[in-house]
Amino acid sequence: MNTVITIGREFGSGGREFGYKLAKELEVAYYDKQILSEIVDKTEYSREYVQDIIESRPSYIMPSTVSVGTSIGCEYQLIQMKEIVQAQTEVILEMASRSSCVIVGRCADYILRDVENVRLFRIFIYADLQSRIKRCIDRAPEGENYTAKELEKHIKRVDKNRAGYYSDFTLQKWGDKNNYDLCINTSKIRIDDAVTNVAKLL
Amino acid sequence: MNTVITIGREFGSGGREFGYKLAKELEVAYYDKQILSEIVDKTEYSREYVQDIIESRPSYIMPSTVSVGTSIGCEYQLIQMKEIVQAQTEVILEMASRSSCVIVGRCADYILRDVENVRLFRIFIYADLQSRIKRCIDRAPEGENYTAKELEKHIKRVDKNRAGYYSDFTLQKWGDKNNYDLCINTSKIRIDDAVTNVAKLL
Repeated sequence: MNTVITIGREFGSGGREFGYKLAKELEVAYYDKQILSEIVDKTEYSREYVQDIIESRPSYIMPSTVSVGTSIGCEYQLIQMKEIVQAQTEVILEMASRSSCVIVGRCADYILRDVENVRLFRIFIYADLQSRIKRCIDRAPEGENYTAKELEKHIKRVDKNRAGYYSDFTLQKWGDKNNYDLCINTSKIRIDDAVTNVAKLL
Repeated sequence: MNTVITIGREFGSGGREFGYKLAKELEVAYYDKQILSEIVDKTEYSREYVQDIIESRPSYIMPSTVSVGTSIGCEYQLIQMKEIVQAQTEVILEMASRSSCVIVGRCADYILRDVENVRLFRIFIYADLQSRIKRCIDRAPEGENYTAKELEKHIKRVDKNRAGYYSDFTLQKWGDKNNYDLCINTSKIRIDDAVTNVAKLL
């Protein structure tokens, strides 16, 4: 039976680093950006369009001019979104059936909730806002000089989109601890320590 | 510097067992029922009265006949509650200053939030309702035969009281993951495994 560890994460909390290192520690596959590539392969849409859909709240990408008169265009866009959501579901299910793995984001915890022959373990990584701003500053690429205020705005916008997409897709609240087996606050817990000890729980 | 681990927990999730075993693993003091005894020692009230106050939402213990005409009695009761809350705060602060320890419940995470010279680590233990009912049935003393329905009602009532007391005391939401460093769902994670690995994080 494959063990699939899903990682939900607040922006800037180190969730991706945690997921990557956990996969390495467990010697299992790691899926993050590859999910987007596989969704693109399954549909006829551009990478940019798919990314817009799955990284923004679907309702946000509706043209602001939508009205009764444009209902046909709106309906067409809904069909496109449905196709992308369907492709996302298929991609996650295929990944889980291939081998044990770590999957970051993409509502994988929800998609895999009732799948037989998968041992599912759902983790949520979060941190307080100050730790997340500090992490972003510490890891900024050379030449990137966002202020703490700008980073705070960016963090909140990304999280709002993630929460919205998750809620539209699952009808559950993003980050609600009841939907996870373990929630780790990286404000105080070092990611390497969390990886070592979570790996032993699995 | 003393390390103090506070344990918030849903009823029936195994939070006390986790806390007791963690204290044993770390070879530090464990405080649970003793908190009540020390509060009683600090006040002039009976054990039963103090227990009523700290295990129920304060507003619940107001006499149902309270009206304008009984406002003096009501005020007297408020003074008593304030004394008990003050004693609770002092007891927790004293425990944290004595030695490293594990403290179960009693808003200790909030009381110790800004205390210098204490390394605070806040854990919340929870589980889905079915796991909690099963746990209560598995551990029921001989002769106790509550039905699942009765246990569900009891679990919900205890948690409602805990949430209410916590919220009255701290103005925070009980069980909100942002107030904890680690939240562990014992529906899937074995308590002994959690103890071993959390101990290594500290």
